[in-house]
Amino acid sequence: MPLRDADSCRFDVVSLGEVMLRLDPGEGRVRTTRTFRVSEGGGEYNVARALSRVFGLRAGVVTALVDNEVGRLVEDCMLTGGVDTSLVRWAPFDGIGRSARNGLNFTERGYGVRRALGVSDRGHSAASQMSPADVDWDHLFGVLGVRWFHTGGIFASLSPSAGACVLAAVSSARRHGTIVSYDVNYRPSLDNGLIDEVLPFVDVLIGVRDVGKFPDMPVVATTSRRVVSASRNDFGAVAWSPETGVVRATERPGLDVLDRVGSGDSFASGLIYGLMSGCPLATAVEYGAAHGALAMTTPGDTSMATAAEVIALAAGAGSAIVR
Amino acid sequence: MPLRDADSCRFDVVSLGEVMLRLDPGEGRVRTTRTFRVSEGGGEYNVARALSRVFGLRAGVVTALVDNEVGRLVEDCMLTGGVDTSLVRWAPFDGIGRSARNGLNFTERGYGVRRALGVSDRGHSAASQMSPADVDWDHLFGVLGVRWFHTGGIFASLSPSAGACVLAAVSSARRHGTIVSYDVNYRPSLDNGLIDEVLPFVDVLIGVRDVGKFPDMPVVATTSRRVVSASRNDFGAVAWSPETGVVRATERPGLDVLDRVGSGDSFASGLIYGLMSGCPLATAVEYGAAHGALAMTTPGDTSMATAAEVIALAAGAGSAIVR
Amino acid sequence: MPLRDADSCRFDVVSLGEVMLRLDPGEGRVRTTRTFRVSEGGGEYNVARALSRVFGLRAGVVTALVDNEVGRLVEDCMLTGGVDTSLVRWAPFDGIGRSARNGLNFTERGYGVRRALGVSDRGHSAASQMSPADVDWDHLFGVLGVRWFHTGGIFASLSPSAGACVLAAVSSARRHGTIVSYDVNYRPSLDNGLIDEVLPFVDVLIGVRDVGKFPDMPVVATTSRRVVSASRNDFGAVAWSPETGVVRATERPGLDVLDRVGSGDSFASGLIYGLMSGCPLATAVEYGAAHGALAMTTPGDTSMATAAEVIALAAGAGSAIVR
Amino acid sequence: MPLRDADSCRFDVVSLGEVMLRLDPGEGRVRTTRTFRVSEGGGEYNVARALSRVFGLRAGVVTALVDNEVGRLVEDCMLTGGVDTSLVRWAPFDGIGRSARNGLNFTERGYGVRRALGVSDRGHSAASQMSPADVDWDHLFGVLGVRWFHTGGIFASLSPSAGACVLAAVSSARRHGTIVSYDVNYRPSLDNGLIDEVLPFVDVLIGVRDVGKFPDMPVVATTSRRVVSASRNDFGAVAWSPETGVVRATERPGLDVLDRVGSGDSFASGLIYGLMSGCPLATAVEYGAAHGALAMTTPGDTSMATAAEVIALAAGAGSAIVR
Amino acid sequence: MPLRDADSCRFDVVSLGEVMLRLDPGEGRVRTTRTFRVSEGGGEYNVARALSRVFGLRAGVVTALVDNEVGRLVEDCMLTGGVDTSLVRWAPFDGIGRSARNGLNFTERGYGVRRALGVSDRGHSAASQMSPADVDWDHLFGVLGVRWFHTGGIFASLSPSAGACVLAAVSSARRHGTIVSYDVNYRPSLDNGLIDEVLPFVDVLIGVRDVGKFPDMPVVATTSRRVVSASRNDFGAVAWSPETGVVRATERPGLDVLDRVGSGDSFASGLIYGLMSGCPLATAVEYGAAHGALAMTTPGDTSMATAAEVIALAAGAGSAIVR
Amino acid sequence: MPLRDADSCRFDVVSLGEVMLRLDPGEGRVRTTRTFRVSEGGGEYNVARALSRVFGLRAGVVTALVDNEVGRLVEDCMLTGGVDTSLVRWAPFDGIGRSARNGLNFTERGYGVRRALGVSDRGHSAASQMSPADVDWDHLFGVLGVRWFHTGGIFASLSPSAGACVLAAVSSARRHGTIVSYDVNYRPSLDNGLIDEVLPFVDVLIGVRDVGKFPDMPVVATTSRRVVSASRNDFGAVAWSPETGVVRATERPGLDVLDRVGSGDSFASGLIYGLMSGCPLATAVEYGAAHGALAMTTPGDTSMATAAEVIALAAGAGSAIVR
Repeated sequence: MPLRDADSCRFDVVSLGEVMLRLDPGEGRVRTTRTFRVSEGGGEYNVARALSRVFGLRAGVVTALVDNEVGRLVEDCMLTGGVDTSLVRWAPFDGIGRSARNGLNFTERGYGVRRALGVSDRGHSAASQMSPADVDWDHLFGVLGVRWFHTGGIFASLSPSAGACVLAAVSSARRHGTIVSYDVNYRPSLDNGLIDEVLPFVDVLIGVRDVGKFPDMPVVATTSRRVVSASRNDFGAVAWSPETGVVRATERPGLDVLDRVGSGDSFASGLIYGLMSGCPLATAVEYGAAHGALAMTTPGDTSMATAAEVIALAAGAGSAIVR
Repeated sequence: MPLRDADSCRFDVVSLGEVMLRLDPGEGRVRTTRTFRVSEGGGEYNVARALSRVFGLRAGVVTALVDNEVGRLVEDCMLTGGVDTSLVRWAPFDGIGRSARNGLNFTERGYGVRRALGVSDRGHSAASQMSPADVDWDHLFGVLGVRWFHTGGIFASLSPSAGACVLAAVSSARRHGTIVSYDVNYRPSLDNGLIDEVLPFVDVLIGVRDVGKFPDMPVVATTSRRVVSASRNDFGAVAWSPETGVVRATERPGLDVLDRVGSGDSFASGLIYGLMSGCPLATAVEYGAAHGALAMTTPGDTSMATAAEVIALAAGAGSAIVR
Repeated sequence: MPLRDADSCRFDVVSLGEVMLRLDPGEGRVRTTRTFRVSEGGGEYNVARALSRVFGLRAGVVTALVDNEVGRLVEDCMLTGGVDTSLVRWAPFDGIGRSARNGLNFTERGYGVRRALGVSDRGHSAASQMSPADVDWDHLFGVLGVRWFHTGGIFASLSPSAGACVLAAVSSARRHGTIVSYDVNYRPSLDNGLIDEVLPFVDVLIGVRDVGKFPDMPVVATTSRRVVSASRNDFGAVAWSPETGVVRATERPGLDVLDRVGSGDSFASGLIYGLMSGCPLATAVEYGAAHGALAMTTPGDTSMATAAEVIALAAGAGSAIVR
Repeated sequence: MPLRDADSCRFDVVSLGEVMLRLDPGEGRVRTTRTFRVSEGGGEYNVARALSRVFGLRAGVVTALVDNEVGRLVEDCMLTGGVDTSLVRWAPFDGIGRSARNGLNFTERGYGVRRALGVSDRGHSAASQMSPADVDWDHLFGVLGVRWFHTGGIFASLSPSAGACVLAAVSSARRHGTIVSYDVNYRPSLDNGLIDEVLPFVDVLIGVRDVGKFPDMPVVATTSRRVVSASRNDFGAVAWSPETGVVRATERPGLDVLDRVGSGDSFASGLIYGLMSGCPLATAVEYGAAHGALAMTTPGDTSMATAAEVIALAAGAGSAIVR
Repeated sequence: MPLRDADSCRFDVVSLGEVMLRLDPGEGRVRTTRTFRVSEGGGEYNVARALSRVFGLRAGVVTALVDNEVGRLVEDCMLTGGVDTSLVRWAPFDGIGRSARNGLNFTERGYGVRRALGVSDRGHSAASQMSPADVDWDHLFGVLGVRWFHTGGIFASLSPSAGACVLAAVSSARRHGTIVSYDVNYRPSLDNGLIDEVLPFVDVLIGVRDVGKFPDMPVVATTSRRVVSASRNDFGAVAWSPETGVVRATERPGLDVLDRVGSGDSFASGLIYGLMSGCPLATAVEYGAAHGALAMTTPGDTSMATAAEVIALAAGAGSAIVR
Repeated sequence: MPLRDADSCRFDVVSLGEVMLRLDPGEGRVRTTRTFRVSEGGGEYNVARALSRVFGLRAGVVTALVDNEVGRLVEDCMLTGGVDTSLVRWAPFDGIGRSARNGLNFTERGYGVRRALGVSDRGHSAASQMSPADVDWDHLFGVLGVRWFHTGGIFASLSPSAGACVLAAVSSARRHGTIVSYDVNYRPSLDNGLIDEVLPFVDVLIGVRDVGKFPDMPVVATTSRRVVSASRNDFGAVAWSPETGVVRATERPGLDVLDRVGSGDSFASGLIYGLMSGCPLATAVEYGAAHGALAMTTPGDTSMATAAEVIALAAGAGSAIVR
């Protein structure tokens, strides 16, 4: 990966996407709980957060929030995530959430035969109303400087203007020599029509069904998962590049899962960290798979792992107690 | 109050309004919490809930919710409130909350010089999209039968169609001999233009600035409050009728306040209970003031008091332990 | 099953049994905890609760509670359960719990080699003191109308008068064409001598050791369970009818168990729902087994599943995340 | 007070009474909570607990518990209280709580105009079934040795056999030179007929209405309380002896109250500590009043204060932070 | 205040001090709790945190932490506080906390007559072992650029090397035109001998007994507090400058206090914000007093207020609910 | 085992070691939590605690704590553990934790591929500063009387003076006929050089790599563990004596683990209980293995099992629910 020089860039990584407040009922269910634990999350953001908090890079996020107590709570969580918040657009609050809102998602983690379950409440969000003119992309990529840019299909499909935002961002990134990763991240409730326009600007494509189908792409990677139960997954990952062909990470059959949400994003951040560190693709995909596995052992969308733990697990460390 | 006969009515009271999920950070603040306690609330609904759970009447609510996990959580809370949910309209969920949402409010209670603070996230809610044709009012009031109908200015000002809904409801109620109460419930973030059209159909008007300004109204009532601090209020109430003129409830100076949200609604339900029980207006306004005072001693928008406690406090009971 | 017409019945289902307050120490143990989470439960009641909250039927429960704060807390929980509480007898409180009490049970869920453990504190409960004259059964079954009646061996063995109550109820139900189900629900701490007198009035017999031993019974059904550990059970179910002979539900080996209490009751409610919906016995037993399995994935005696989840799992749905 | 020598006594203080599990809904109410915090309490026991945990004496309690998980939880709490549990009688558990139970009380603390509220569930408790023959009092007082014995009217009125137990205990204590204190502790739900038979054996009489009415008693003492609201009490204490006549402790008007339950017992233990330490009655009643005041600042029936804090407050210490 | 130009400085404010993990038992006490809520705090740090999170300035902290899970938890909290952590020195962990530790403090908030109580466990902390050579002060002040530097007597008295660190810092700050504030912050458990050497480099002196005793100081300021009870304080503030003489902030008698810890630091940050904004001293001291008052209404050492709330309260806003 | 007579000994068992406060983030991680649950623990102490609370023996602990709120919280927990605290040395508090501290450990339990993780903060602890002269061992063993003494390698390696303390204790124990057990308890962060001097005084040696290597030792025993994942361990135990040779406990493959910390200590206490009860070594090692397995099913270092549960599991009991 021909990365821009770190000294000439204010950010190692910037992602573009929505950041939502997650409301989690713990071991209970959304529909009957009386208490929620909150944290922040969002597919594209989670990658930047982990690259900062887990892997120590300088990360920022381009997003929009409404300037009320809830938006400020999301900011409070993002600060905990070590993500620079100076690129956040603060939309005014209309007192009721009619014109613009902060995205919410109510997500329970599932257990055994009871599957994990998420309810999005992200319509009319400030992020979904972002449009290309909201951000001076050439200033961000050309003046401030960014080494890696990450975005994906969740944000791109929020609205036509969000999709246009993605296109404006990736084309500007390409113009300024910033590497671009894109996580397709297909899910039924979101429509992904934009991808054909975006692909020409992408260097690392993540989350597709078949890694071998994109011969012009420098790197393609994805996780593989067989859901034995909500508490137990067979989990692996695979990547492809023209130089290496298909490379596979260690398979982890029967992995114990506490909360699977965000594991794909943790895979992406582990992979990107490996690639940015100059590791071979086989190592990078191991980092991604190990980080995805670790992220499933803690509550919340985002990872609580450390880089050292990721590297140790990727290298085959066991689960004995450390003290 | 010339109430319809109980045996000919399925409901003693029905209210029309939005029911929201309240997210409460306890002794902390919305903008920095990591845990929320949830309960349901809504100005008009709270009155029906208390008339059922506190005062033992048969209550229902006309509202609309989106059929997802969050809407079902609100229903779970409403069931706890003893309110009949068969009149709830369930709007389909679009998977993201774009077309219709469930109303949320994030509310902290304040403490001393730190004031209570609420953030509405109720734009695009299913309730705000209700329109007159959604409900067969003549069936409700004429066939099922309702003795008392309550609605108010919060719901009426959510949208023009919600306002039209209020008008259709109160005029149908009047046609079928149902008593109508209306809580103006003015607050800055909501606009109340509809009131002149509604007033001719109202029998009990609540929450106005000056109870003596409505000479054609059978009953007018309101609370009075001086906010010494968020933890201490001087609290009283006043009512007026052509027969009695102005009557005042016991003043409670320096009342200890845990959570003031919903105390006005508790005043309304205490007053209505008194009037439905055939009490003199002076007694009814005491019930209202006592219930409002008790509701401020527990968390959440809704009251945890009992009718016996309300009546005892209205009659001057002290605060010694009961065991 | 020749069910009575729904329009002529106020209730789809009524159960007779004790409703207790469950005190649950979460992941800890009763004997060392300092906090309890509370919910309501009772073998016969759980069936009515699930038929209402999970499967959408109109359910009521005949029981007795003492009219104090604890009894009212149980009522608060029952309201959440969507169960009509108008058939509850409220016994007066003597100030100390000497003459009549509300039943309590302290139950921990177990983990791995540590088995689940329940401590009943239900002696002298108001429910155990119910006698046949307390309820006008012919009014309930003949005037109000009930399509399905459920009771069982836990309640029947609480006291001779409770047993007499069961006999009075099932014989009245038979007279008025109400289908009767009875869950033997044998457990060592309760004595079940009444069963021979009850059986002639039963249409659906549940919870016996050998489903083939009751040739005159229209339907016999039971779960099968092998306890690998408190956290993992092999779980299945079997039913028999003269028409079908023995039919077996999908076996679920190595099922992940969070809290097994109430899974037998969830089996019963799933089975009854299937039978009331006119499903073949093979489908009904699948519904029962799936509901029992889902109920073990959440805390508490009662189910937090939805009908759609039960039907999907019965049809072989996987455990992938839904969002 | 002519106290027995410490070296010849295994116990400085022993109390006789019931120990119950208190279930506390925190800032909410019993009738709507979903979580209880638990602790142990009982009027007579609380005195022994504080004399051990707060004042450092060797304390034991004579009581009876049922040998099940709940009884063992009470024991777990008593161990935390530093009270010797070797004098506890363990009654067998019948599997259901019919023959003998552990006493429970559900108590909420009140707030402002909402009064504190307790619900006893102590009927049929093992403690209430204690009878004189259950304990070898002459062994306890004569062989093991006890310097101070405390019991009172709550336990004495639980049942005739409990009352007989009290009589047997105080007469044996008198025979062996043990000082006896007795807290009348009158409350409406308990009947106190036994007191005339007990008084001749009592050295320190507590909790009576008028301290001057017992001219033959060495010491009489009681608290005085005016309940401004559940959160604010005017609190004082008064004592009398033939030598001193009436002595009054510092009045504390407008005392902030978090949980008033157990403050009378904390008064008693502070007073007894003062008397056992050889302080003048005026000092002892100050200790009692200060300890009672401190006990109202923490949740639960029992005190979390330290002897140093009691002595400092009694001496007029302010409320500035200590660090 | 002749502040350096913002564009030439990376930081608006930097503070030097220890950051500790606070363990808080909520409404209970340290000595009997079983749960702690954690947050970070430290006298000097709290000022930088509030200038960032509350007032929006770019803040950093010079401190040292041990690189283990606890140190990283403090960092996690500091990130939430919006404070730049690039100036933190990470000391290696020896596996046991013998050579260097992270400072802890266990602090309970008090209630009424029970005073707030803090227990420091900060001996051998990495921060207390800092020495002048650990930081290149001229690089910080001269190359990176800092507009305002804050430190104080808590850190200065931790050890001789910490004191030397303070001297090195303030003299370098003076050399590079950075304004210096110093909070004497006297408390009995810490010894403050260094102050005479530090004073010549100080521009704003805080926390002294008598503001009029430092005629050469540009600004002197302090809070005044009368502790009515742990829950109620009379709270004010006073400042002095050669130009204005003594100016007093609004007195707040009977202020409701939830947790007083950190209110002095909040006073300091409000004052500094006013001075940095170019407000007159009378306004700045009002900001300080209002911020100190608000900080006492939330748990934890650090403020959860917003600049808008501080300014509104300083301007005399009431405590009515905002919604 | 030639045990001293129970009647001539005040203690059945005394252990010597450090008791720390454990801070546990529950299902989260130390580095990101905001709440800790606390309990007490320490390798040597855990054995005494279980012999008291689980197995009913009279146990005490020789340790040192600092006399501040944290030390008193540890005492509060030890009282809950049923351990006599009269042998605790209370070191004075210097106000900051510089001269002596209470040992802390922050420990998370791990999950699946995420390993359990402990961070010691026990440097400079009062326990580590104990020296031989602090305790009058001959008074303890000779006058008070102790049947069994337990200590081990964790405490012995805290400091040279702690090691000397161990030597003084075991030699005195031997002089007075007290059986001595010693758990080597090797872990990387602690250095164990003392063992050769201690071994001659040891009767039961625990926690070594190879039980057959100590031909002069009366009993040698250890657990065996294969860590499949943090949530699943293969767990067994083995013992050796000259009479029996090697005996093995039941292997438990795939044991479900909630919190593995302290399982080795639970093995030791189960083994010692068996030996003290006069069981054959094969039975004692089964008790140890069963107790170790049960201790891993509950949170915290210490066991919440009962003797009856241990004996039942050792005898092959299943995991079916008990009620």
